[in-house]
Parts: sequence; C-alpha cells; structure tokens
Amino acid sequence: MTQQKRRPVVVLGSTGAVGQRFIEGLSNHPWFELTAVAASDRRAGERFEDSCNWLLSGQPPVAVSSMRLSKTNPAEIELETARRPIAFSALPAAVAREVEPEFARAGYAVFSNASAFRAEDDVPLLIPEVNLQHAPLIRAQRDARGWPGFIVTNPNCTTTGIALALKPLDDAFGICKVFATTLQAISGAGYPGIPSLDVLDNVIPWIPTEEEKIEQELRLLLGELSQTRVEPSTFEVSAQANRVPVLDGHTICLSVGFKQPVSPEAAIEVLGDYRGNRAVQGLPSAPSSPLVVRESCDRPQPRLDRDACNGMAATVGRVRPCPILDLRLVAVVHNTIRGAALGSILNAEAFAQSGWLDEA
Amino acid sequence: MTQQKRRPVVVLGSTGAVGQRFIEGLSNHPWFELTAVAASDRRAGERFEDSCNWLLSGQPPVAVSSMRLSKTNPAEIELETARRPIAFSALPAAVAREVEPEFARAGYAVFSNASAFRAEDDVPLLIPEVNLQHAPLIRAQRDARGWPGFIVTNPNCTTTGIALALKPLDDAFGICKVFATTLQAISGAGYPGIPSLDVLDNVIPWIPTEEEKIEQELRLLLGELSQTRVEPSTFEVSAQANRVPVLDGHTICLSVGFKQPVSPEAAIEVLGDYRGNRAVQGLPSAPSSPLVVRESCDRPQPRLDRDACNGMAATVGRVRPCPILDLRLVAVVHNTIRGAALGSILNAEAFAQSGWLDEA
Amino acid sequence: MTQQKRRPVVVLGSTGAVGQRFIEGLSNHPWFELTAVAASDRRAGERFEDSCNWLLSGQPPVAVSSMRLSKTNPAEIELETARRPIAFSALPAAVAREVEPEFARAGYAVFSNASAFRAEDDVPLLIPEVNLQHAPLIRAQRDARGWPGFIVTNPNCTTTGIALALKPLDDAFGICKVFATTLQAISGAGYPGIPSLDVLDNVIPWIPTEEEKIEQELRLLLGELSQTRVEPSTFEVSAQANRVPVLDGHTICLSVGFKQPVSPEAAIEVLGDYRGNRAVQGLPSAPSSPLVVRESCDRPQPRLDRDACNGMAATVGRVRPCPILDLRLVAVVHNTIRGAALGSILNAEAFAQSGWLDEA
Amino acid sequence: MTQQKRRPVVVLGSTGAVGQRFIEGLSNHPWFELTAVAASDRRAGERFEDSCNWLLSGQPPVAVSSMRLSKTNPAEIELETARRPIAFSALPAAVAREVEPEFARAGYAVFSNASAFRAEDDVPLLIPEVNLQHAPLIRAQRDARGWPGFIVTNPNCTTTGIALALKPLDDAFGICKVFATTLQAISGAGYPGIPSLDVLDNVIPWIPTEEEKIEQELRLLLGELSQTRVEPSTFEVSAQANRVPVLDGHTICLSVGFKQPVSPEAAIEVLGDYRGNRAVQGLPSAPSSPLVVRESCDRPQPRLDRDACNGMAATVGRVRPCPILDLRLVAVVHNTIRGAALGSILNAEAFAQSGWLDEA
Repeated sequence: MTQQKRRPVVVLGSTGAVGQRFIEGLSNHPWFELTAVAASDRRAGERFEDSCNWLLSGQPPVAVSSMRLSKTNPAEIELETARRPIAFSALPAAVAREVEPEFARAGYAVFSNASAFRAEDDVPLLIPEVNLQHAPLIRAQRDARGWPGFIVTNPNCTTTGIALALKPLDDAFGICKVFATTLQAISGAGYPGIPSLDVLDNVIPWIPTEEEKIEQELRLLLGELSQTRVEPSTFEVSAQANRVPVLDGHTICLSVGFKQPVSPEAAIEVLGDYRGNRAVQGLPSAPSSPLVVRESCDRPQPRLDRDACNGMAATVGRVRPCPILDLRLVAVVHNTIRGAALGSILNAEAFAQSGWLDEA
Repeated sequence: MTQQKRRPVVVLGSTGAVGQRFIEGLSNHPWFELTAVAASDRRAGERFEDSCNWLLSGQPPVAVSSMRLSKTNPAEIELETARRPIAFSALPAAVAREVEPEFARAGYAVFSNASAFRAEDDVPLLIPEVNLQHAPLIRAQRDARGWPGFIVTNPNCTTTGIALALKPLDDAFGICKVFATTLQAISGAGYPGIPSLDVLDNVIPWIPTEEEKIEQELRLLLGELSQTRVEPSTFEVSAQANRVPVLDGHTICLSVGFKQPVSPEAAIEVLGDYRGNRAVQGLPSAPSSPLVVRESCDRPQPRLDRDACNGMAATVGRVRPCPILDLRLVAVVHNTIRGAALGSILNAEAFAQSGWLDEA
Repeated sequence: MTQQKRRPVVVLGSTGAVGQRFIEGLSNHPWFELTAVAASDRRAGERFEDSCNWLLSGQPPVAVSSMRLSKTNPAEIELETARRPIAFSALPAAVAREVEPEFARAGYAVFSNASAFRAEDDVPLLIPEVNLQHAPLIRAQRDARGWPGFIVTNPNCTTTGIALALKPLDDAFGICKVFATTLQAISGAGYPGIPSLDVLDNVIPWIPTEEEKIEQELRLLLGELSQTRVEPSTFEVSAQANRVPVLDGHTICLSVGFKQPVSPEAAIEVLGDYRGNRAVQGLPSAPSSPLVVRESCDRPQPRLDRDACNGMAATVGRVRPCPILDLRLVAVVHNTIRGAALGSILNAEAFAQSGWLDEA
Repeated sequence: MTQQKRRPVVVLGSTGAVGQRFIEGLSNHPWFELTAVAASDRRAGERFEDSCNWLLSGQPPVAVSSMRLSKTNPAEIELETARRPIAFSALPAAVAREVEPEFARAGYAVFSNASAFRAEDDVPLLIPEVNLQHAPLIRAQRDARGWPGFIVTNPNCTTTGIALALKPLDDAFGICKVFATTLQAISGAGYPGIPSLDVLDNVIPWIPTEEEKIEQELRLLLGELSQTRVEPSTFEVSAQANRVPVLDGHTICLSVGFKQPVSPEAAIEVLGDYRGNRAVQGLPSAPSSPLVVRESCDRPQPRLDRDACNGMAATVGRVRPCPILDLRLVAVVHNTIRGAALGSILNAEAFAQSGWLDEA
C-alpha cells in the first residue's frame, strides 16, 4: 500500500499510558495513519505535547506532538476516507461503555483495549493468532445492534500472556485445569496508577477484578464459535494476582492439568513449534513467532524478556512436571505492548488482511 | 533468671546476613548471653566491627562490636558454663555439614538455620508452635550418633511461613493438596547474594532447590513423630518460587484442598484462634500470636506486615474460595527473623523451657 | 506528669503521610494525649481506620483506630483542658494558610509542619536544638495578630537535616557558602505523591519550590533573633533537589565554605561534640544526640541511617576537603520523622519544658 | 565500504557488563567485524553463550553466541587483515594495565574503556566530538614506547556526560569552577557489582576513586594539546559521587562558574547549537547531535533520557542561575553506551575516518 492510501485512524484516550503505546505503535505504520488523537472534553483543543505527560522514553513522535486533542465524540472527528474508519480505544472501562457504541454507530471499526464489552456475547475477544476464527461474531453484533460499525476487543494483558502460552498446549493435549499466579508490572495500572509509596520494596497481593477477568477471558479465548456466540472452554481456572515493583512485563506462574499425561519434552516441542493462525504471520505488527521458548532455568524474566520480538511475543520457560497437576511453566508478556495497544493494532491488521474490516 | 545466670552462646557464621539477625536477636536476651562470634578461619582474630559489613539499620550492638572473631571450631571457643552450651548456626549448608557435628560432638546444643541436616531422620526440623512434639527425636539422634550434644534445625524461611499458616487448617480440616507460589525477598539469598543488576525492575522465576525444600519440609513439619523418625504428612505439595525486588518478607500465594469442604469463614475463624503449642507462649522471642489475620483485601504485604510482632508472626489474608481446590489465601513471613535467626532462637528457648536443653 | 494530666492535642490532616507519623509519635506520649483527629469536612464522622489508608507498618494504634474524624475547625473540636490546647498540623500549605490562624485565634498553640507561615517574620521556624532562642517571636506574633494562641513551624524536611549538620560548624567556624545537592525520598511528597511509573529505575531532578525553601529557611534557622524578627544569616546557599527511589530518608551532599580554613579533623570533632540547646536534652522525643557522626567511607546511607535515635538524629559522614570550598560532607535525615512530624512534636515539648507553651 | 572489507576486531573482557555492550554495538557494524571474543584464560575455549551471563534484553547476537572464547593474549587471536587490527578493551583496570600494552606491542590499535592508561601523558583520553584534536598524542606514544600499535582511552562514564555538557559552555564562556554531584546507575559498577541488599531503597554516597577520576579527567578532556602531552584546563572541579537504584543512566547536578557572567538563555542557545567536532558527524555510531537540550522543568531523567540518540547523546536541562556561581544545570548520560562501550567504538570510528587508525 502506498502512503496515500493509508487508512486514517483515531486513538481514544490518547494521553494515558496505553494511549501512548498506541501512538508509538501507529507511528510510521504502513497501513494506518494516525490523524486524530482524542481525550476528555475539557482538554480538547490543547496540543498533544502540552497536554500529555509522556511516559515513554524520549519524546512523542514529532507528527503527533503538535496535533490538537479532539473531543471523544465521533461528530467532532473528521477522518477523510471512503472506507470504514478505525478508532483505537484506550479508554477507561466506564467511559468506553458509553463512547465505544457511539463510534460503532457512526460507522467506525472500534478496536478496544477496554474491558467494557469483552464479556458481551456478540463482541469478539481476540488474540488473532489464537482465535481469529471468532471474527464472524461481528456479523451477529451488527445484526443485533444495527450498527454500521462494530467493536472488537482484546483481552486483559495478563490473560493475553496466558492464552498465548496455553493455546498450543490446549490444541495438542486438551487442558482441564489451570492455576495461574501472576506477578504484574505497575504499568498495568495506568498513570498515575500505583503510588510509589505503595509498591517500592513491596508486593500488593490484590488487583481489583483481575482474577475474575483471567478466569473468564481465558475460557472465552480458547472457546468455540457457535453461531452467534462463543462457547467458553470448560476447563477450570484459578488465578491469584499480585502487583510487583516491575515497570513493564507481567510474569505468570502456571500449573496445568491435561486430559492426558504430558511430558515437559512434549510440551516444549509443541510450544516451540507454535506459530498461531497463519493469517497473522507477516502482518506489520506481528512477531516472527508469538511464543519464544527459553531453556535457561532462570527465564523468562520480565526485564530481559518483555521486549522479545518488539514486545509482541510471549516468552515461556521452566516447563517442568507438577507434583499435583501435569506441568508447571512460567510465562512473561509485555503488558502494555502485546497485552494492550499493540494487541489491539494487530487485531485491526488481521481484520484488514482477512477482509473483515470492510465487510459491508 | 538473673543476668549472671544467662547461658553462654556462640553464633557460627556470625558476620553474614542471617548471622547478623542472630546477633540482633541475642542482644540483651534474658536467658542467653552472646559470648563468642565465629567466622571463617582466615578472619579469626579480627574485631567483629572491622570484619563485618553490617547490613542492618545503624551499627552492631556495642557489646559485640569489639569482640574478636573466633575460628569455627569448638576447641577454640571458651564458653564458661556448667550447663550445655549453645551454638547458633548461620553457616552455609556445605560448611554446616562438616562443622555442626563437631559442635554436637563437643557437647553443644546446636540450633541451626542451615539446611544441611534438615532432612535427616533423627534431626528435629522445628517450628515450636507447630511441632515441638518432635523434640524427642534428639534422643534417637544422640543414641545413634553418640553425641553428648545434638542438632536441632529450623525450616527454610518460606516453608516456615507456609507451615504457620497451614498448621491450624490442617488440624481442623485435614489438608490434601497445596499449591504455593512464592514472591521472595532478596535477603533470603544472603550477602552479597542477588546482584542488583539481576533484580531491579525484574522478577527471577527460579530459586535453586527452594521448591524442593518447600515440598519436603512442609510435610515433615506437619508430620507425626513415630519413635525414631517423623512420618511426613501425605498431602501433595506443588511449589513455584520467585525472587522479587523486596528487601525482607516472603509472600506466598496458596491454594489448598481439604479432606472436606471448608468455607472462608470457617478458615478465618480457625486461623484467628490459632495460638500454637502452649509451651511456646510467653517465651522471650515468642510473638503474642504466631498468626495475624488481616481482613483488608489488599493485605498481607511484605513491607507493611513483615514486622508483625517484631517479625515473629506470620500474617495471612485474602482467604477466599478457590475455583479448583477449596481455599486461596496469602501469607507473609519475615524471612530473616521468623524464617531464620529468630526462629532458631525460639527453638532454643522452647528447648530451655521444656527441659530438653539440658537432658542428659 | 501523670497520665491524667496529659495535655490534650489534636492532629490536623491526620490521615495523610505526615499525619500518620504524628499519630505514631503521639501514641503513648507521656505529656500529650491525642484526643482528636481531624480531616477534610467531607470525611468528618468516619472512623479513623476506615478513612485512613495506613501507610506505616502494621496497623494504626488501637486507641486511634476507632476515633471519629473531626472537621478541621476549632469550633467542632472539644479538647477538655484548662491549659492552652495544642494542634499539630500536617495540612497542605494552601489549607494551612486558612485554617491555622483559626486555631491560633481559638487559643491553640499550633505546631505546624506546613510551609504556609514559615516565612512570616513573626512566626518561629524552629529546630529546638538549633534555635530555640527564636521562641520569643511568638510574643511579637500574638501582639501583632491579637491571637490568644500562636503558630510555631518546623522547617522543610531537607533543611532540617542540613541545619542540624551545619549548626555546629557555623558556630565554630562561621559559614559563608553552602552548596547542597539532595537525593530525597518519595515519602517527602506525601500520599499518593509520586506515581511509581515516574520514579522506579529513575531520578526526578526537580522538586517544586524545594530549592527555594532550602535557600531561605536555612538562613533563617541560623539567623539571629532581633526584637520582632529573625535576621537571616548572610551566607550564600545554592541547592539542587532530586527525587530518588528511596522510601524514607533524605540524603544531602554538601560543600561548605567557611570564614577561615577548616580541616576535616576539626570539623569532625565539632560535629561529634554537638549536643544542641541544653533545654532539649531529655525531652520525650529528643534523641540522645541530634547528630551522629559515621566514619565509614560509605556512610551515611538513608536506609541504614534514617532510623538513628528513632529517626530523630541526623547522621553525617564523608567529611573531607573540597577542592573549591573548604569541606565536603554528606548528611542523612529521616524526612517524615525528624524532618516533619516528630520535629513538630519536639518543638511542642521544648515549648512545654521552657514555659513558652503556657505563656499568657 | 563493503561487508567484505570490514576490519576485524576483538573484544577483550567480552563477557562482562561493558563487554556485552561492545558486542551489541559491534553487531552488524558497517566498518568493523567482530571476529574474536576474549575472556580470562580459564574460560578460553568455552562457547560465548555458555560462558556469558547475558545481562541485556533477550539473547546475545546469534553470530557471537557460538564463538569460542579466546585467551586475552594477542598470540592466541588470529585476526586476518593486512591493516592494523583493533582490540576493544572492557577489561578491569588491573588486567588492562598488563594486557593492553601487549596488544599495542603486537600491532593492535587498542580502544580501551579501562582506566589503566587514562592518566598517562602520551595516551589520548578521548571523546571525539570534544577533543579529537588530541589524537596526535599517539605519535608521541608510539615514539616513546616503540609500539607498532597504540592505546586510546575513553573517559570514565560520568566524566563523559559532564564533558559533553560543559565543552560548548567552556568554548563560549570559559569555565573557572565546577561543582558536580552525581547520581549514578548500578550498571556502572559492572557485574555482579552492587549487591541488591546494598542499594534497594537506598543511596550509597561513595564510589571508590570516582570523584578523583572526574576531577582529573574533565580537565584533561578540555585541555590543550601541547606537543607530547595535554595541558589540563586550570578550572577547579569538586565532585561528589553517589550510587542510586537506577539500572542505566548517570545523572549529574552541576553548578558552574565562568570567566564572565552567563545567562541561562545564552547557555541554552550555546548548548542547543553544539554539534561537536565535524569529523564525527555521520559516523556509524555518532548521534545526530551529541547534546539534547530539554526544556521541561523535570528533565533530564535517566530512565526517560538515557536512550536519546540510541544512548549516544547526553541530555541537559534545568539550566538556571546559581546563587553562588553562574549557572546550575543537570545532565544525563547513558553510562554503558556513550559512557563506555559505544564511546570507545566511536573513538575507533573517528580514528578510521580521520586516517589515524592506519598511520604508520
């Protein structure tokens, strides 16, 4: 595609921690052109660089710095295109609940990192390598809601890492039980998020609604599309979520039971061979491989492995027997790249590639 | 007891991280008088304050600062007493393996934090509130080895926290399965221990031999004394150990299955009522209660709860149902106080109180 | 004094980070009885433990936990006493500006940690060891303002550490220039204060208004009382303030020029001999010595030295020549204990002891 | 230059923290081809990936992973080239003292990050943008020592940042006094380096020999070449060095006196215009600009600014008047990239470009 033909996109919630990752991920994107950045009404009209406390290294991309913030309202945003415009949403759940339908009603394809619609029967919850086959849900969604556009969500950051690690094992061996204890980075709480007085030299053994999200979303991701909804997988999930003083990168300790005995060697082979849905390979934001398997006994580690494949691959390691279930393993995923903004962008790319983006 | 009658004690491995906690715990102790500090031979003769990189707040106790380091050899240490002298051991396992028997052979009661003898059939592995009833093992030990003295060990720091949290639940309901994922403080690795480049902004999902120790020692602690050995409990244990950037205080996420259904309310009541073996109550280093139950949904936290009862109580919280087993809960224990040096001193106090210390 | 005769006190801004240190410092105080805790109007009536996110170790003192929060209004607070009641203020500056005069007008002795009135000519800015001789300013204050009560302030946390370190040197040698670069703990910013995303693995080289406060307050503290105001010292001060990922304890690197050549040895002797104003010695919150001199080349360090004398002594070390001025040295002070709440309580104790508290 | 013609290079001390940065910086280098990696003799023969605890993100470059470690001995290293071979040295000072002359004697151009020869009269201490004009010193060096090769050093990491920030100001206004207080990252101490127990929640106000290095090297860098030696600048320097819990990036607070009054605006203009020696511009490892000026009042910060221009630009900010001298400002430099390995590689590139590399 030539630069002229890039599809215009807007980022909603553009000044927050995840919004900034969207902006970083859309900078020089070959298919999408960031032409608007939206924020809360009271900040509309301000220059992005004046309004945004840029949390990432260096400074915002030059092209974005001087943009004026738009109101989070489709009527106020002009995206010149004959095709369906895209809105990427980094909104908080409560705002997303109100605003995302307005954009879908205005014809937008909304790719949302918010949790607001993840549990709706007719809204795809998508990691494209794992379950792009759930994309047809948007037909049911548009039929039921009468929207010219639609909403597609990506899962919770932690669940993204677990699903990438477990999908190939589920395909190969059939999962029946999952224990997941997480050690999650502070960037997962947004900005200002966790006060430093709470987390320095400390662990906070509770992240509101996180355990419930993991337990629900994981089964949906590995579930079967059945007409107008996804039938969740029936395996049992028990999660314990902790916040640790790590900037980026969630670590998840897993114990997994299968429908048959599984050796570490067999699991490692399956994990190492995993490439995910073929339609995703080669997309602009796709990793060369969605899973990296590390053999060193002290890996994966969030600081050293979160940036694998530009933060788009989950890394697994320490695959070993479990004295109670079948296997123990550890996964690391970059929570604000793969687990949030770039996961959402990859969804949009997969939709563009497979034709779902412009389905009438 | 008057000051004159205090029993003389020596600390082996006195200059290390755990050794310093022994010295702190023995400073102004009403029953024990620290009269010698031992270190490796090459440092013998040096003043303690010159040889020791004091890691705790402020400075070493004045009385210890000017002591000269002794060789780690019972022949070189003079403890003037008609009664059985005590050696507290903060030695590394490999050294302890050689040296602790020499002290037992020389008539010492050795209270050891080292792992060297924890798995021996005739060596008590002791948390006095939990299993002081295993103390008679020292008879078998002395019979079998012909030692005038004996060795008593305290468990691994993490296991100490788990055992304190699970003992009342096991007594009340009968445990059959335990998943334990740990988030462990850096002080658990001693000094110099973990390089800062390895752990700042990071998690290390592996602690050598830790998972094995938890799986073995927990069953021993909750096992039954049977003549000359302890019959380990038969429940299954699966542990995953992680190092996190926390100075002191291990956090353990537990999922527990019981022989019968157990409600969180019933568990909380049992935990709150727990006082442990009565013989321990009122000992100089004993906490007012070995378990603190916190009801706030974000507790326990290592920085805020590690010092409960001067670091001698474990704190539990987040007691809630588990979707797979019966209950989930979180425990925090101070790893170098209750989980190491002071745990060992408490063992010695319990032995003194109950008469085992001077058993002929 | 017997417990019955303890003077009733209220803490304003009681639920914040410094407010909690006031509560901790007043728990079991021999002279003062904490009988009311105030907070913003909208929280009035709530139980302290329900309203306060307790940031210190463990839990709030039992006696305070169940207190109901009062409005920050002298008319709403009942302190039964025939003597002058005390209000300790941990209010933010803007609120203090409004509220502290109301309390003074209602007859309270207000001991304030807020910066609102520190720069007023007739308000003592006090570290009692350093400049208790400025106490008579309250006469001018009461005369000028017609208040039955009065306001006494303690300096900015960092300035407190610098003043304690430099007072004996100024007395002995006469200071003419001071460079101060600070490495300040996050607790100095209150709660929620610094977001963890801003400070983990980072330094923030700017603390709003801090450099100005240091430059002004230091000269006032070491200035001369002259009738109705303090004539500031005339030495020059240049400060650079940085926030570092440390929980408590400010570190200050100083280069100092004197009116005469001063050797490190001479300075160390003077520092080591310093005891401060005699009237302060033996007060309930007074340290055994307001300055601790450490000779080890790598001290003072905030984590290891902040708690010297229960956090009430500043620690100095690395006294060495300066290639440009005369001496370089490093100081550490506990910013929320000596540098805030307990500094304020010590002011009240010094006022009580010296009779200023009840001056008609 | 085509790939075939790349000049072969060896890295000495290749497995350490700085050695790894050399390897990263030489990966896919257009001019230099990493053909050997050396380490201590006892590890010779081991595969790089087996012997090296890789501290950077991800894994070592594939091409290096399978290389066998060479002994640190020019006789054991085969670099096939008709031109002068290059050795990059990440050796500890004591080893460098012995080994670097051997390589120079064997005809190597040694570009060294070690401090061993920095203070020798005939060894260039070089930041190419700042003082490439000192390069001719190698003639004196080769004459005096009779070496076919030569040694070029780069300064201490902290000094590198200070020199980059002060060079344009010295050129424009003439410096006469410099106060520098540093907040240095832990990676500056190498690996294992600083134990985490020493630095977490802490500051260490002492870095052995660092203050002396800053005071000496800064004057050399800004000095004048005078025949066979560099005449150091005569301004006065006073440094205070601190270690802080930051992974990478040294922060330096500066107060500077000039030979004439200098306004912040004038200084900012000079800093912003600085490009350094023209011969350096466009070199493979050269930044687009060696200095980045940030206007935001809370910058530079090490985590956010250390990677400016791939870690090769120093960032300055907070340029403001000083109450004692003329100006205060803050600088940040990436200590293991610009301040170590890549600084050394840039020296080699500048030597190659300017013809000094192959001078007979």
